[in-house]
Amino acid sequence: MTVEENLYTRLMAGYDESLSRSGVDGTRVADRLNELSKIGVSLDGGITRPGFSKEEKKAKQLVKSWMEQAGLQVTEDGAGNVIGRLEGMDSKKTIMSGSHIDSVPNGGNFDGPLGVIAALEVVEAWKETGHQPAKSFEVVIFSDEEGSRFGAGLTGSHAMVGQLTLEKVNQLVDFEGKSFKEVVEEYGSSLQEVFKAKRDLNDVELFVELHIEQGKILERNGLSVGVVKGIAGPVWMNVTFEGEAGHAGNTPMNDRRDSLVAASHFIHAVSALPRQFSDTAVATIGKLNVSPNGINVIARKVELTVDIRDIYEDKRNALVEAIRNAASDAGSVHDVEVQCQQTLAVAPLLIQEQLVSSIKEAITQFGIEPVELMSGAGHDAMIMGEVIPSAMLFVQSKKGISHNPEEWTDMKDCVIGIHVLKDFIENQMMHI
Amino acid sequence: MTVEENLYTRLMAGYDESLSRSGVDGTRVADRLNELSKIGVSLDGGITRPGFSKEEKKAKQLVKSWMEQAGLQVTEDGAGNVIGRLEGMDSKKTIMSGSHIDSVPNGGNFDGPLGVIAALEVVEAWKETGHQPAKSFEVVIFSDEEGSRFGAGLTGSHAMVGQLTLEKVNQLVDFEGKSFKEVVEEYGSSLQEVFKAKRDLNDVELFVELHIEQGKILERNGLSVGVVKGIAGPVWMNVTFEGEAGHAGNTPMNDRRDSLVAASHFIHAVSALPRQFSDTAVATIGKLNVSPNGINVIARKVELTVDIRDIYEDKRNALVEAIRNAASDAGSVHDVEVQCQQTLAVAPLLIQEQLVSSIKEAITQFGIEPVELMSGAGHDAMIMGEVIPSAMLFVQSKKGISHNPEEWTDMKDCVIGIHVLKDFIENQMMHI
Repeated sequence: MTVEENLYTRLMAGYDESLSRSGVDGTRVADRLNELSKIGVSLDGGITRPGFSKEEKKAKQLVKSWMEQAGLQVTEDGAGNVIGRLEGMDSKKTIMSGSHIDSVPNGGNFDGPLGVIAALEVVEAWKETGHQPAKSFEVVIFSDEEGSRFGAGLTGSHAMVGQLTLEKVNQLVDFEGKSFKEVVEEYGSSLQEVFKAKRDLNDVELFVELHIEQGKILERNGLSVGVVKGIAGPVWMNVTFEGEAGHAGNTPMNDRRDSLVAASHFIHAVSALPRQFSDTAVATIGKLNVSPNGINVIARKVELTVDIRDIYEDKRNALVEAIRNAASDAGSVHDVEVQCQQTLAVAPLLIQEQLVSSIKEAITQFGIEPVELMSGAGHDAMIMGEVIPSAMLFVQSKKGISHNPEEWTDMKDCVIGIHVLKDFIENQMMHI
Repeated sequence: MTVEENLYTRLMAGYDESLSRSGVDGTRVADRLNELSKIGVSLDGGITRPGFSKEEKKAKQLVKSWMEQAGLQVTEDGAGNVIGRLEGMDSKKTIMSGSHIDSVPNGGNFDGPLGVIAALEVVEAWKETGHQPAKSFEVVIFSDEEGSRFGAGLTGSHAMVGQLTLEKVNQLVDFEGKSFKEVVEEYGSSLQEVFKAKRDLNDVELFVELHIEQGKILERNGLSVGVVKGIAGPVWMNVTFEGEAGHAGNTPMNDRRDSLVAASHFIHAVSALPRQFSDTAVATIGKLNVSPNGINVIARKVELTVDIRDIYEDKRNALVEAIRNAASDAGSVHDVEVQCQQTLAVAPLLIQEQLVSSIKEAITQFGIEPVELMSGAGHDAMIMGEVIPSAMLFVQSKKGISHNPEEWTDMKDCVIGIHVLKDFIENQMMHI
């Protein structure tokens, strides 16, 4: 059995066919996930489809063919964003849903593709049931969301909302040393066309994205789907502790300026800080390097990074300040120099309460407790949300594993997620 | 002015000539340090004289020529240890003094050479003053003390006391991939000859080594010289904390198994432990590596080393146990797996009280407060001390810097150290 056959078989094993109703077809969804899983697949089943690659383009072409079969009018903008449009009875008002189909190197089959296939499945369901949507509906594939191409990401959505600047793209160099300009030209577009992707979104009332959770809360609570109440914007800081090297044997304990002891004091303190500010705040020291890093040499310098996130910008910023103070305190206590440098600050997005409520209602209709989740990772919905009302729903991820061939979501959770998405969209279609 | 001229000039700048008395000549000592500093010197004045290298051999030849000029009978054993012997009135009893002249890569001019030149200066002083020692006296240069050749060290003294085994040397591979056998053959000896260096030390009453402190206590207290009361033997441990990787944004603080937070808890705890066991105990985490070491990934694994030393073996071993418990506690608190592996355990050496007292008397005669010091680093005296009574005195090191071209000891401190060494040896000569 090949890897490709395997995904469909694995998805459908034990699938409850009664979930395929109201035009939503689990078999079709599994088949489409399976077809996409063949593009950019490695020997261990991992997916490598960098933004603007041949693999991403091939995947888009496949989805375009499905869009056309479903009766959508398909266009692609200069940034490579694919849009499949269904005219509504009031064609001036548009609801948009989708995600991305690029991947990190050796990533999984659900992060991105499931959101695109889900939006398309809503159209398929309407087609099967003869439902005529009140407003226009667009299924969208955003380009280069993951950022594995240039270490940036969210390129398609940034281009659509007009946040891509020449200054920014001129700094981008891909993993092969190619400039952004070269890459988009190879892809078949141009710098000029990319900037033309900026769209007047006045007619678009809403963007909604279905995505895998990439966390463990839904699994822990035995839930298929949950509503995102906010997308946490990260602040990144580089913190350097610089003390004094010395011989591990000849320097008494009370005569040390040990940068690793100071850094440890800091890391330990930071782990207790987020809960003081918010239930959703997180702070992570994931990267740390010691100099000179010798067994019998007191550490002269420790360089580490802090990743700080919350959906509430004011609380996050207060946490950032508290973390700066903790660094300074640890430096004072251990007589070590401290430097903090902020390298990134992305504004969090709080989802509008009315949209959160509406998704919760749809979830409740499936007899599921409507849990509010925070998205710690960035998504295209975060970018769209800066310009138009945007919402997200998460489906369960096994063990929270993501960006990895082991990434998994049960078919049951995929299909229940699609039903919730469909109900929510239909509900929003009825708002005047 | 060249680097070579510079060392003599720098040493003699501001030197108080009145310290040159009782046959001890500061000019000669500075000149010899300067001559040795030319062998294996790099552009920045650093010294590279690995054990069994051409440079170490050349330096030995130079010292041999000084030994012969001073009237000593010079021999070299199969391990490359050079001995310059002066027969005493009772030639059956021998006192031995010396150190090494190999260096770490880009090391300094004092660590080793000063102890050899000091022992030789005692002979020069006796020659100048017509003093006839009661017992025989040997000036010794031990081979390959630093261990920069094979990552082991103390090779010459190990060979002399018979602690070098075939099993040990067969494991040694040098920085060029050469075996111990190849290296000693290139040097002009053989494996067989190395083992023949084992000496019956029954006639040797005492070994005494003068060395730079490589710490800051003497400098802090404005003292030229101090007595070593013990040489701390190190225990090395590898400690591994293994938790679970996760997305920095999507994993709530209370749902983490963060190996770096656990390791930080441990490092912070360890820094407070030594003082609970002994004033001289130290524990150092100098090396630490994080996996996967990504900004937005919770650390799955931290591997670190702990270097634990004391001059009191029982207290050191109790500290090792407490550190193991601290690792286990940190693992429990943060739900992270912990593994501890001991990779080295060297027995500490406590200097005999009678020898410490005798050196303190000699120090006091120079109007200097006799401070007792611990040696955190290993020395040839530690190895000799396992077989015969051994003692050490330390002279002041500027800023405690060692294994570095910046290593420095003022001429005043060198010469006062030599006077103390000479007085101590003369005192020991009078013991029956």
